[in-house]
Amino acid sequence: EAITPDMLRDALKAKHYEAVTIVHNETSTGVQNPVEELCRVVHETSPDTLILVDAVSSLGGVKIDMDACGIDFLLTSSQKCLALPPGLALASASDRAMKKAESVTNRGWYFDLLLMEKHRIKDSTPMTPAMPLIFALDFQLDRILAEGLDARFARHTAMSKKVQDWCMAHGMEPLAKPEYRSRTVVTVKNDLKWDISALNKFLKTRDMRIANGYGKLKDLSFRVATMGETSLKDIDMLLEGFADFMKQ
Amino acid sequence: EAITPDMLRDALKAKHYEAVTIVHNETSTGVQNPVEELCRVVHETSPDTLILVDAVSSLGGVKIDMDACGIDFLLTSSQKCLALPPGLALASASDRAMKKAESVTNRGWYFDLLLMEKHRIKDSTPMTPAMPLIFALDFQLDRILAEGLDARFARHTAMSKKVQDWCMAHGMEPLAKPEYRSRTVVTVKNDLKWDISALNKFLKTRDMRIANGYGKLKDLSFRVATMGETSLKDIDMLLEGFADFMKQ
Repeated sequence: EAITPDMLRDALKAKHYEAVTIVHNETSTGVQNPVEELCRVVHETSPDTLILVDAVSSLGGVKIDMDACGIDFLLTSSQKCLALPPGLALASASDRAMKKAESVTNRGWYFDLLLMEKHRIKDSTPMTPAMPLIFALDFQLDRILAEGLDARFARHTAMSKKVQDWCMAHGMEPLAKPEYRSRTVVTVKNDLKWDISALNKFLKTRDMRIANGYGKLKDLSFRVATMGETSLKDIDMLLEGFADFMKQ
Repeated sequence: EAITPDMLRDALKAKHYEAVTIVHNETSTGVQNPVEELCRVVHETSPDTLILVDAVSSLGGVKIDMDACGIDFLLTSSQKCLALPPGLALASASDRAMKKAESVTNRGWYFDLLLMEKHRIKDSTPMTPAMPLIFALDFQLDRILAEGLDARFARHTAMSKKVQDWCMAHGMEPLAKPEYRSRTVVTVKNDLKWDISALNKFLKTRDMRIANGYGKLKDLSFRVATMGETSLKDIDMLLEGFADFMKQ
């Protein structure tokens, strides 16, 4: 279930919070929370509350206008929509978040935003970073800009819609409500009672695999990643795989 | 200057410390602290004090017998003697350190030893790690074992001795006293007043470079790394470069 603006408004009215954390995109349920509306509610209801957004599985695949939304801290990692190996965490902090960091006396060292910022303005880092991934990021950002951000976002939307449409046409409903469906991962109720491990064994012969449902949703749902460098052609191949699996 | 056993004994007698931190190998000064003797002093003088050793620039190049020394926490990184790109921190904790960790209420999440251990025994990690470097480590550990640990340590000793001997034969003294000279980096007083940036420009034509002195020691000393996959042949080529630079 998505976090609705009303749920958030009620919570903020009931109690004061220093910060609100929002997961933009839930890979287990395939829910994309309405981050713009949620941010608006925070600004209207509790203006001094900081907004921290986990965009781990969406940044680079879905547009997030940090400044327009008034997000104070936006976090992602390298191995999702940026399509790099894991190992890097990337974040952006608002002026307000930096100001707040100044008031924190025990910031530690490894995650001290002020220390990071001090080095960032010298085009440096406080510690030796994972250089292979920095080089890879530099290369991949050029590729992402070459594709174009709008084109990249449109591709993610088209891929996820294609998977959703195919599943619905074959009698399986996405778990999330229509207005909250993720564009980077599609989580579908396993209404046809597919044997997911048998499906993956079949898909493996074509060098593909999907993910089983997570935790309690195991075998009750399955998940298709529609992110990163996956193309519409890849999605077509996967759906063809689904169709052939059904014929068996 | 190295930390001597006497200095440490005096400090431990003057005041009780929960933990002592020892930098095994100082790359700025080329000092290798006598970790075995220091550990013995701690065990004799203040047995319940934990011993935390930074072996960032020595582990994999110099033998450190963690159990025999009674070290409680030993830390290194991938980009020094293990000769991998930066990005991994590797550590080993004693039973005593793990026990101590249990008594710490605010361990955070990212550096929580108990959480890491819980996953380690399942051959897993609490979070997605930098996989490219894990694969590289797996590969490199095989290479290190193929060379043999004793052979690897002997190579580091021979390389550093060769640089030290050459420098002394040419009128330049290592910064550290003979008994505390590092085997993974040689820091030498720049007694011949070499122009280090000119030297590096010259060495660059042969695809080599050395490091200038660090901080206050800049231009007053220079540093030669004798670690990782560097071979005695590489060291010979470097010293030949030094000799040719002097002839200029």
